[in-house]
Amino acid sequence: MGNGSSAKQIDFRTDPSRYRHWKVEYDGPVARLFMDVDENGGLFEGYELKLNSYDLGVDIELADIVQRMRFEHPEVRAVVMQSAKDKVFCAGANIRMLAGAAHAHKVNFCKFTNETRNTFEAAGEESGQHYICAVKGACAGGGYELALACDYIMLTDDGASSVALPEVPLLAVLPGTGGLTRVTDKRKVRRDRADIFCSTEEGVRGQRAKDWRLVDEVVRNSVFDETVAERAAEFAEKSSRDRNAKGIELTPLERTISEDGSVTYSLVEVALDRDAGVATITLSGPDDDAPTSVDELHGQGADGYLLKLARELDDAILHLRLNELETGVIIFKSQGDPGKLVAHEKLLHDNADDWLANEILLYWKRVLKRIDMTSRSLVAMVEHGSCFAGVLAEILFAVDRSYMMLDEFEGDNRPVATITLTRSNFGPFPMSNDLTRLQTRFLGEPEAVDRAKDTAGEALEAEQADDLGLITQALDDIDWDDEVRMFIEERASFSPDAMTGMEANLRFPGPETMETRIFGRLTAWQNWIFQRPNAVGEAGALQRYGSGQRGEYDMRRV
Amino acid sequence: MGNGSSAKQIDFRTDPSRYRHWKVEYDGPVARLFMDVDENGGLFEGYELKLNSYDLGVDIELADIVQRMRFEHPEVRAVVMQSAKDKVFCAGANIRMLAGAAHAHKVNFCKFTNETRNTFEAAGEESGQHYICAVKGACAGGGYELALACDYIMLTDDGASSVALPEVPLLAVLPGTGGLTRVTDKRKVRRDRADIFCSTEEGVRGQRAKDWRLVDEVVRNSVFDETVAERAAEFAEKSSRDRNAKGIELTPLERTISEDGSVTYSLVEVALDRDAGVATITLSGPDDDAPTSVDELHGQGADGYLLKLARELDDAILHLRLNELETGVIIFKSQGDPGKLVAHEKLLHDNADDWLANEILLYWKRVLKRIDMTSRSLVAMVEHGSCFAGVLAEILFAVDRSYMMLDEFEGDNRPVATITLTRSNFGPFPMSNDLTRLQTRFLGEPEAVDRAKDTAGEALEAEQADDLGLITQALDDIDWDDEVRMFIEERASFSPDAMTGMEANLRFPGPETMETRIFGRLTAWQNWIFQRPNAVGEAGALQRYGSGQRGEYDMRRV
Repeated sequence: MGNGSSAKQIDFRTDPSRYRHWKVEYDGPVARLFMDVDENGGLFEGYELKLNSYDLGVDIELADIVQRMRFEHPEVRAVVMQSAKDKVFCAGANIRMLAGAAHAHKVNFCKFTNETRNTFEAAGEESGQHYICAVKGACAGGGYELALACDYIMLTDDGASSVALPEVPLLAVLPGTGGLTRVTDKRKVRRDRADIFCSTEEGVRGQRAKDWRLVDEVVRNSVFDETVAERAAEFAEKSSRDRNAKGIELTPLERTISEDGSVTYSLVEVALDRDAGVATITLSGPDDDAPTSVDELHGQGADGYLLKLARELDDAILHLRLNELETGVIIFKSQGDPGKLVAHEKLLHDNADDWLANEILLYWKRVLKRIDMTSRSLVAMVEHGSCFAGVLAEILFAVDRSYMMLDEFEGDNRPVATITLTRSNFGPFPMSNDLTRLQTRFLGEPEAVDRAKDTAGEALEAEQADDLGLITQALDDIDWDDEVRMFIEERASFSPDAMTGMEANLRFPGPETMETRIFGRLTAWQNWIFQRPNAVGEAGALQRYGSGQRGEYDMRRV
Repeated sequence: MGNGSSAKQIDFRTDPSRYRHWKVEYDGPVARLFMDVDENGGLFEGYELKLNSYDLGVDIELADIVQRMRFEHPEVRAVVMQSAKDKVFCAGANIRMLAGAAHAHKVNFCKFTNETRNTFEAAGEESGQHYICAVKGACAGGGYELALACDYIMLTDDGASSVALPEVPLLAVLPGTGGLTRVTDKRKVRRDRADIFCSTEEGVRGQRAKDWRLVDEVVRNSVFDETVAERAAEFAEKSSRDRNAKGIELTPLERTISEDGSVTYSLVEVALDRDAGVATITLSGPDDDAPTSVDELHGQGADGYLLKLARELDDAILHLRLNELETGVIIFKSQGDPGKLVAHEKLLHDNADDWLANEILLYWKRVLKRIDMTSRSLVAMVEHGSCFAGVLAEILFAVDRSYMMLDEFEGDNRPVATITLTRSNFGPFPMSNDLTRLQTRFLGEPEAVDRAKDTAGEALEAEQADDLGLITQALDDIDWDDEVRMFIEERASFSPDAMTGMEANLRFPGPETMETRIFGRLTAWQNWIFQRPNAVGEAGALQRYGSGQRGEYDMRRV
């Protein structure tokens, strides 16, 4: 099975014409989302996606649906997630796929599915597009984790339908797509009940599921469909979304990949140095002036600068994560006119009550979080001619280190490097710890956030940026090349596992949220278990699944 | 090297007459604690404890010192931690020990050292016994983690002394004894500086260490000792501890271990069923009435019921953790007079302004946290004749599940099983998430805490306890044996790794603190790295350390 090997490039781009696993029916404010996984539509060879089990390909489609729902169907206020198959809602992640997958693929798969769960959970909270889960049939493991990320879970009381997290007893791994965390922190299930629930293969059904807070409502089977429709109408009624909003089309994302692995989009360029393990992502500033009105923004649709840039950057990050595993360092650069860029984002901020302007800002929030969560060493190079302003300046505070050109460089006639802070840097793009990146950066000296805020709108040169603590180091013409080279060489000499662990701990100080707990705590334990022979060894439960034999365990606790 | 194997029983009991690695000088309110590790005093064969590097044996002594400081030397208000060796403060955990240790030993070692760091950090906050770290010479890795857990870090500016966390570049593992977490969340070091600091072998010295918030004060070498003495005097001055307190002696803890592994203390009995992987800890209620005054409590010293019980229980837990790795389930039982027990703890609560009463309560806080942090399936059996009242009832809310006898059992003439809640259950013993165990239990229904509180002082029988949500299940004579047996058999059939990961995620919902981040996030990542070939493989950095060769890494990021 080529699963997780470099043999197959994984493409995150899709559209409804290519879906194999999901169907959506739109009916005004309510959309119905049917999971109907094609058994033979696995992303890799070697497994069948039976019983609505899923692999990364199924999740790529779901992520696309959630994204399009927000941009192409702004009229939707409630989404009913349900199964198109009889007797099963969803059996969770496909076990044979997991058993055959390389460690890195398992981890990346879990990260992406977690991010996708977060997006539809956020759609309700941020955009009033609420997901309701209507469970008929077995809803197990990753299936129940889909439900957990919805705003409301309804379970039919037909004597057979149940919710379950059977990972621990059946597979010797954790419900790692947020399952354990949402059981404790979202559903707030009592701990001993959670213990029973998570160690019971067959799960919980009927009234007990409601009593134990595992679902929000248990409904007689004979009136299930009509009750679901009622609830959807109620959620739609409560939502404050604009009823008359007309969506824009997310047109296909064009890119070319060269032989050496470099990727070219229209506004994003990914230069790859595979020998050095370095990818350099260069973001282009806008060529055109900002639209002068929201109408113009709507008219531009997916060609609008900030939406296009976000889509391309998002795709580039996902591409590097899954397809370029040996790229240990990602360098962010930008080139362009910071003034123009600030004008583009100003239109969005000034019109944040417009659904499209708002959705573009919210999308940037997700893309920036995607960067935060990327397990590679991240560094920004603020070169002459760059446009790290506002939302792009956020990248400087998302990375592990930043270097900025100081004074003029010989033979470089680009405008001198500057950083411009705007309102983008003080609120609209919180990290998953719910603080802004500058608040997180300055946890030890909160007054530094205020000092930075006082400079909003100013083009800060290197010395000033350094004084304000906004960059790691300002370097002049003499030192730049050496320091940058040394950093990259040093990074390339470290164990990538230690870097991943270090970054996961250093990047998210301060408060914890459900998101940071999922990515920081649950994921780390799952990754540990994904290395343990009791799960992945030859006699481990994951390998033996389906063979009729249980796993053989080394019973020593660690 | 027998390191971590079952060949050698690890004994956590020690006393000053047996110390090989530390010296303490008492001088009224200030104590001076010298680290002077005996190279040849390693707990196992196969390594030398050079440069004040440590193994579990060194840490067992440190934990004993911290404990005795609180009980035997209540007059101490400031503790200066320093090195008795030239040119080195502490080189951290011994690498050869780590390289030779089994995975389970590494994990248990880190857990115990973390708990010990927490105890002296808590001594300052809770008891006004402040630890000051006076760093001369190299202070690296676990050495700096010792410093980080102190209330104040002083660094001499002699051009050679430095603080460092070289684990990532040197060993491809994390600074796992709280290092990363205290850098971000206690010291609040800016993230890019933390990134540089944690990837720089040689560390940071002089003024930069202060500017980067890594130490509190940098002092010229010529005036270092006198400045340290001044700061110690200042901390001592600020402390509100009773100046005239006279300590009690922590007399030797007696126990016998039988051939089958069962352990007998005076108040605690550990019955071991190695085939089933089950340990049953039975706690005895007090024989004698409670002391009638604080003076009497002081007179009893280490023979006082609640102190003795805490010491024995603490030792039993540690013994099981390190020496009985195949014990996957720990069952807690108690037998005794709940009324007498409540009277014993009432004396402590009523006199919490007395240093000894207070220290006994604080010790129970630590012992209960030790239970929370124990990676075994924990279950309580509330049998007839039991005394789960007040502080012992906390154990019911620390375990994963609890079963309680309902109505009379044939042939059992012990008093019917009851649970009695007291003020112990509503404040003084917070978990590491800073909530009480009942607040944590009832996160989803906070009103249930109030309902429970209304019953304080009542002896609640099974049905009532069940209605209040205090137990998992009430079982009558007919069901008891079967249900208990089924639970134990089921538990024994699960992968211990999956149980560990599940429990680490289910036990600590709600808010996170530095402690939960250390045990939940940092530890999980470290455990993952401790499984990865880049660290522990034959060509991994841990194995190659000291060979002159760097580790060879698989550069794929996961």
